[in-house]
Amino acid sequence: MAQGYFYCNKKEDSAVFNYFFRTNPFKSGFTVFAGLQDFLKMLAEFRFSVEDIEFLRKKGFDGEFLNYLAGFRFAGNIMSVREGEIIFPNVPAVQVEGNIIECQLIESMLLNILNFESLIATKAFRVSLVAGNRPFIDFGLRRAQGLGALHATRATIIGGASGTSNVLAGKIFGIPVSGTMAHSWVQSFDSELEAFRAYAQINPDNTVLLVDTYDTLQTGLPNTIIVAHELEKKGHRLKAIRLDSGDLAYLSKKAREMLDNAGLDYVKIVVSNQLDEHVIKSLLQDQSAPIDSFGIGTELITGKKDAALDGIYKLMEINGMPKMKFSDNIEKETLPCKKQVYRCTDSQGMFIRDALLVADELPENADKIYHPLHSERCSEIKHLQKEPLLQTVVQEGKIISENKNPEEIHRYLLLRAASLPDEHKRFISPHLYRVGISEKLLKVRDSLTKQFLNSKNQKNS
Amino acid sequence: MAQGYFYCNKKEDSAVFNYFFRTNPFKSGFTVFAGLQDFLKMLAEFRFSVEDIEFLRKKGFDGEFLNYLAGFRFAGNIMSVREGEIIFPNVPAVQVEGNIIECQLIESMLLNILNFESLIATKAFRVSLVAGNRPFIDFGLRRAQGLGALHATRATIIGGASGTSNVLAGKIFGIPVSGTMAHSWVQSFDSELEAFRAYAQINPDNTVLLVDTYDTLQTGLPNTIIVAHELEKKGHRLKAIRLDSGDLAYLSKKAREMLDNAGLDYVKIVVSNQLDEHVIKSLLQDQSAPIDSFGIGTELITGKKDAALDGIYKLMEINGMPKMKFSDNIEKETLPCKKQVYRCTDSQGMFIRDALLVADELPENADKIYHPLHSERCSEIKHLQKEPLLQTVVQEGKIISENKNPEEIHRYLLLRAASLPDEHKRFISPHLYRVGISEKLLKVRDSLTKQFLNSKNQKNS
Repeated sequence: MAQGYFYCNKKEDSAVFNYFFRTNPFKSGFTVFAGLQDFLKMLAEFRFSVEDIEFLRKKGFDGEFLNYLAGFRFAGNIMSVREGEIIFPNVPAVQVEGNIIECQLIESMLLNILNFESLIATKAFRVSLVAGNRPFIDFGLRRAQGLGALHATRATIIGGASGTSNVLAGKIFGIPVSGTMAHSWVQSFDSELEAFRAYAQINPDNTVLLVDTYDTLQTGLPNTIIVAHELEKKGHRLKAIRLDSGDLAYLSKKAREMLDNAGLDYVKIVVSNQLDEHVIKSLLQDQSAPIDSFGIGTELITGKKDAALDGIYKLMEINGMPKMKFSDNIEKETLPCKKQVYRCTDSQGMFIRDALLVADELPENADKIYHPLHSERCSEIKHLQKEPLLQTVVQEGKIISENKNPEEIHRYLLLRAASLPDEHKRFISPHLYRVGISEKLLKVRDSLTKQFLNSKNQKNS
Repeated sequence: MAQGYFYCNKKEDSAVFNYFFRTNPFKSGFTVFAGLQDFLKMLAEFRFSVEDIEFLRKKGFDGEFLNYLAGFRFAGNIMSVREGEIIFPNVPAVQVEGNIIECQLIESMLLNILNFESLIATKAFRVSLVAGNRPFIDFGLRRAQGLGALHATRATIIGGASGTSNVLAGKIFGIPVSGTMAHSWVQSFDSELEAFRAYAQINPDNTVLLVDTYDTLQTGLPNTIIVAHELEKKGHRLKAIRLDSGDLAYLSKKAREMLDNAGLDYVKIVVSNQLDEHVIKSLLQDQSAPIDSFGIGTELITGKKDAALDGIYKLMEINGMPKMKFSDNIEKETLPCKKQVYRCTDSQGMFIRDALLVADELPENADKIYHPLHSERCSEIKHLQKEPLLQTVVQEGKIISENKNPEEIHRYLLLRAASLPDEHKRFISPHLYRVGISEKLLKVRDSLTKQFLNSKNQKNS
């Protein structure tokens, strides 16, 4: 396609693309926007190497076009909502402006990283909604989708995880890393007690004992209690036990009782094994399991069963002319124009609606917004505060947004989530957040639709 | 844990680990083993850099242990089934032997890449089972889990995909790449017809027209027919149309009819949009949709909804002593010992059973195999051919297996799959493939279990 634009003399055509998605993942009432900083880093490094050009030449691409690629740098403008923002279906989270070739060349990279990190940050934040003050750690490297583990781990921290077992992600993104004993450690010794003692000796102030290699309540806990008392005599305290199989509600209660009866009320209980937000909610809220923290693998790091956010990247304008994609599925039609998104908040600062305006519209003139598909439904936004969400992050190819570490981004998420009414956060049938378009945008859309239908009818007549 | 082994003077302890999984993904009757070559490449490059060591030092690791890591190379032995092999739950696909530290340090890398590529290769092969001779292409980059897209794409080729839209994966793994027109191409022109003409002019012998930007049957197909006839006049042939929304069965039939009526029976029909093996089966088998090839995104590249294979890596022996993990869930108990896997085939060469023997057992002495959990169930394997599946791929740290490209691995898969009875390939309740253990392995397992139960009972009495 890029070669096509090049030879059609369209390479200087200016385009506007929007990144948005149609459905929240996990039947959630919202999505957490993540991946922006990683995307911008990739964008800054986006070059065609000599080797790349050679590869493309072998694939049959043309010399003049390849010369163009060899000197290619993204030199357009990008506006985006902040990383960690709470976002909703059909709201453009990123708006890219540039010549049509540069806009298209970055499409796959943009979609890949924003879709993925937003998915995982959303999953992690849902876990944090039920885990409350109890920390949870990413244990997912062994089940992650290959090298996807790296960005996924970063996204879990944005969503609210406290650390990771993925040491490389820890190194790259400055994320707290945390280790744990595996069954093989216990098996490699002649007895469980010996294995526990050896581990406690090496990490006297940071020991988490995995108690289910043989029998949790009959051997794991009794051996834990022996080692914990031995540590006490040397002036140390056992940190925690980890339960990794069986009925976690039942076992955590029994374990808590045994530990407390042995004077070890300070020893924490960590659990792992096929956890997600629903299992954790059931453990804590329905069963009052005395669990202090969680290790979460597959579900957190892949978003299983929703393994992808359905984000898309669509053309909104070409050379200043608004553009639409039509479809037999009316909900797949796109909203034209370069835009600004205004978050409308009430007097308490709570999020009420998102309003999509044509970029050059003044928000103070937008009194009403309209349902994008059923324009007979509209609502007043005159009295609401309006905060523009899209901010320039790349200007003429230069990144102008500040780098933040994942924990800082998480704090911004917490701030924003505090303004999201609780009804949008519940797991079952969350309240639908309203997104509407301005009268001006509606008029452009209706006029393009009319043009399109007229040209179709002419053809048929 | 590695530091623990180091200071417990266990660093020279010799260990045997097995990689296996407990459940086929996608309710499949089998799994395709993939990722070996990528794993071995990572293994060969596995070093702790000066930067890595510095990072670990800051995390509190100890100087003497870090010196050990600085010089670390994997120097053990690895046996594996061939990449592209058909494998089953509880069968060790990889067996790692070495000192316990080197065995453990490679665990996460091994699990990550083998679990993921095996998942995706299995998905792709399931698609190929229903697509038959119709090619299908990986279109998943924009929905892939970050950088996981790279290995996933390789795995789709092993499973049977013909190419990818992921150009970087094409370059790295030598995979055929194939492009396609997006809606934005069509939108960027003043009319659909102009967009089609421009594309056809640039790629006259390789044009696939995307026909659903406005209205598939009312504009997309009529414009296609105009352009196809124009191409004919210049001595070219339009390659295909692509349907990307709406009812693919209905639209493909209507499109076929319109193309045929216009004398364009050679123009192929490509479809995309949320496809997986079940949708394709329904399109082709239930609805006889005249589709020639498929572009598959999210489901193929992530395995959604099964986004992970549950492969694990467990200790089997330490210093020659067999080891087991016990569990309240009896199916989570492991089978001890260093092993060899024998695939038992009938006189036609069809796969009948897999037999797990202790490594030093002679297969000709194994007359019977036993159900691992219900040893009262056994079956004769005396009369069956027995092929050892685990072959040495790494000897004292040196990779001795030959590199193959993904298409060669796919051909091996086809060869092996031809010997898998059809009942194991069906999608609904596939026939269970039997895996049994030898009498010798059973005896070791029972004796370890007895020892364990005795020691528990002593404690309780």
